[in-house]
Amino acid sequence: MILKNDLLLRTARGEPVERPPVWLMRQAGRILPQYRALRERLSGFKELVETPALAAEVTIQPVDELGVDAAILFSDILVIPEAMGLPYEMVEKKGPLFPKTIRSESDIGNLVAGEDAAARLNYVYDALELTRKELDGRVPLIGFAGAPWTLLAYMVEGSGSKTFSRAKRMLYQEPVLAHHLLEKITQTIITYLRAKTRHGADLIQVFDSWAGILSPAMYREFGAPYLQQICSAITEAPVTVFAKGAWFALEDIAQMDCQVVGLDWNISPEEGRRRIGREKVVQGNLDPCYLYADPEQISIATQKMLDAFGGRHIANLGHGVYPDTPLDGVRAFVEAVKHYRYE
Amino acid sequence: MILKNDLLLRTARGEPVERPPVWLMRQAGRILPQYRALRERLSGFKELVETPALAAEVTIQPVDELGVDAAILFSDILVIPEAMGLPYEMVEKKGPLFPKTIRSESDIGNLVAGEDAAARLNYVYDALELTRKELDGRVPLIGFAGAPWTLLAYMVEGSGSKTFSRAKRMLYQEPVLAHHLLEKITQTIITYLRAKTRHGADLIQVFDSWAGILSPAMYREFGAPYLQQICSAITEAPVTVFAKGAWFALEDIAQMDCQVVGLDWNISPEEGRRRIGREKVVQGNLDPCYLYADPEQISIATQKMLDAFGGRHIANLGHGVYPDTPLDGVRAFVEAVKHYRYE
Repeated sequence: MILKNDLLLRTARGEPVERPPVWLMRQAGRILPQYRALRERLSGFKELVETPALAAEVTIQPVDELGVDAAILFSDILVIPEAMGLPYEMVEKKGPLFPKTIRSESDIGNLVAGEDAAARLNYVYDALELTRKELDGRVPLIGFAGAPWTLLAYMVEGSGSKTFSRAKRMLYQEPVLAHHLLEKITQTIITYLRAKTRHGADLIQVFDSWAGILSPAMYREFGAPYLQQICSAITEAPVTVFAKGAWFALEDIAQMDCQVVGLDWNISPEEGRRRIGREKVVQGNLDPCYLYADPEQISIATQKMLDAFGGRHIANLGHGVYPDTPLDGVRAFVEAVKHYRYE
Repeated sequence: MILKNDLLLRTARGEPVERPPVWLMRQAGRILPQYRALRERLSGFKELVETPALAAEVTIQPVDELGVDAAILFSDILVIPEAMGLPYEMVEKKGPLFPKTIRSESDIGNLVAGEDAAARLNYVYDALELTRKELDGRVPLIGFAGAPWTLLAYMVEGSGSKTFSRAKRMLYQEPVLAHHLLEKITQTIITYLRAKTRHGADLIQVFDSWAGILSPAMYREFGAPYLQQICSAITEAPVTVFAKGAWFALEDIAQMDCQVVGLDWNISPEEGRRRIGREKVVQGNLDPCYLYADPEQISIATQKMLDAFGGRHIANLGHGVYPDTPLDGVRAFVEAVKHYRYE
């Protein structure tokens, strides 16, 4: 299928472009009235993730409503732990909860991995194909996965946490066990992401959402090597690595076989670029709270950010858009990027 | 009163010392069986904070049990918002909750500030005097306060939060209001901390616990200037600034009139030192989760950290010690520092 708007892909490949492409992490979600209306009719979050027609519908909503330059398939990073044998519930206002967690080598032995796990995620591949068909080439479609360390964190902790100290405890007390688990998760992610590219994902983003709670030394041991394995294995589509909070690892990430590096809002565009270098494309990084400001201010701040990155850049926030963000704020951000032109 | 162990103060003043002093943030707390036993007999956390004899007792427990080189008065950063007119409850397993929050200029007008607010905290000054008397010069006594931005965050948000998006919204939507509130908070902190030094605090630590959720530009506008006001105003004792997560502000903090800069565990000692320079003393920064490892590993990691900082350093964790940390892990950390010698 020929894309009518391939700005994201041209940018990710490092080609010269007229302006940066723009999309928002979590653009398919509660910021949109259409999404909230649909959610109200459903039993819960997982019904949306697991029903291809619904996932496709909410994936396309922000393309219609906001005119962003990419769609990102509505899904959850925790579909992989579930496919590996750890089902989870999404508890309203509390977040994910895993009744079973990983404690021992035998727990790891019981996990399904690689092809066998990825084969359980047909509903994701179906959602991708359906979305791609319905998008009809309007914009590229992004597929994502959680990074190995972030998935380990949930699989060991069993829920969200401020400190993930149970998961981190495993790294310090049983590093061999942790590496074994990370290997199994990594194999599964690779198989899953390659399948996603076959079923219609034009670009892949890997979210290491909890990278920032590890020390630089621990991230170098338990985080970065597995990310690099994924980056090397995915050759079918450009890959974006977004390791939230891991400013200290940006030089390492810049050496990986990925095309795009995501930045959170805790780093200035200048320092981000300095750490990543000019080789990679960068993505980010406006503070999501900036979208609470009035539209004119948002417009100015966005232009300033685009100037500061100065090309080889995909405009986005530094984190997922917050559910209570006014739609006018989101629009001001998107429009500011779409009106921008590189000299 | 003459201190028998003044290692912390000599280090904070930049004098040459034989080894780094060691203490742990949250050392007076749930890691100690004595603390847990006392807590069980009480109605709640606030009874402990507000009863000088009890606060003194738990403040001294880690000096007895662990042999640390400093005591830190058991208290809470939220005593200041409360003294200013926003009472809070400490909800078991959930954290602080403010029934009243700041929404408007008239809410700010209703706040008590400066001397009038600080005068409501006599129970803290009494606790300091009692602790100092009971410590009998064994180790120096640290007094602390929350930083203005962190206190604003709670006063506007009304509780803990992953994003503090309500508080950050004020910075973006009503910056004038935010500055006005920050000024009132800052005046109160200064009066309070100066009173603390008169009542027995030998060193002051300011915790900017939520520094890391602001962008570098926002922290430069709403965080750093108020911290600097506090540092300039406190001349009676050395001041430590610990802005958690604000690696991006370390160069700014290094320019403040403080003596010690705290580091969290997300930065390597080498990069921390590079950003702060050799002028200031640094404090930190072992990952609190390292204390889950076995004692021998902890000992090796601690020595490695001390080597990396190479003097002008107060040994501590990079965050408060987690409540479920084994006491043997804490001891291994403290002992490793106490056996260390500078060449």
